[in-house]
Amino acid sequence: MIKKVDHIAVAVDSLDEAVELFERTLGLRLTRRENAAGFDVETATFDLGDIGLELVEGTSEASEVRRFIRARGPGLHHIAFVVDDIERSLASLKAQGVRLIDERPRPGQGGSRVAFIHPRSTRRVLIELVEPARKA
Amino acid sequence: MIKKVDHIAVAVDSLDEAVELFERTLGLRLTRRENAAGFDVETATFDLGDIGLELVEGTSEASEVRRFIRARGPGLHHIAFVVDDIERSLASLKAQGVRLIDERPRPGQGGSRVAFIHPRSTRRVLIELVEPARKA
Repeated sequence: MIKKVDHIAVAVDSLDEAVELFERTLGLRLTRRENAAGFDVETATFDLGDIGLELVEGTSEASEVRRFIRARGPGLHHIAFVVDDIERSLASLKAQGVRLIDERPRPGQGGSRVAFIHPRSTRRVLIELVEPARKA
Repeated sequence: MIKKVDHIAVAVDSLDEAVELFERTLGLRLTRRENAAGFDVETATFDLGDIGLELVEGTSEASEVRRFIRARGPGLHHIAFVVDDIERSLASLKAQGVRLIDERPRPGQGGSRVAFIHPRSTRRVLIELVEPARKA
């Protein structure tokens, strides 16, 4: 079901300060910065081989990222895996009794489709499944 | 300085249960299980392309992993980056005022050398640097 890691996400309370740290101190290359309105987050993505390191700041008090930071503090937030067929993956997980945050995929970045698995079912690791955009 | 991700580690309270979950439910392939006595941890590593997903259980009450779980709960624990020259990386970080857990590298898995950066200096993300074993 899972092919590889798509990205690793870090919850931060100040995207600007975090970007400066990862760029200047660790020398990572910032490739993309965007506002993902549907998720109430702003993200900055660094390129690490074919994996993204994504910094995520919540843009509203209700955003899941801010709730995560209130509960656990900032830090590693979720890991995203590439899958071939996201509907089939979700159906297989559901059949195994895994709790899903997203029963159906929703639009992700760059034409991908994404869905989150509930961390209660995965040892408190928040996992995102990503089905990349199909190439034309 | 940083070339790519070496592995992503997850703090778990039961390695056996977590291995079963990641193997059976998510279909990941377990490649290695070992006791890293120097770190007071037992680990199980899954292969994800050229990145490892490492589950880590603390084997003593004093182990850092158990302290992490007491403070924050189980879940994503650290991210490890490959570097070419770990001494040079540590010296550069120190010169920038970054707080280090390991001022000098210590032996890691498979002949590698590793060092942890203090999460207070990296937005609460625990980062490990890994200099792989030199090929003969």
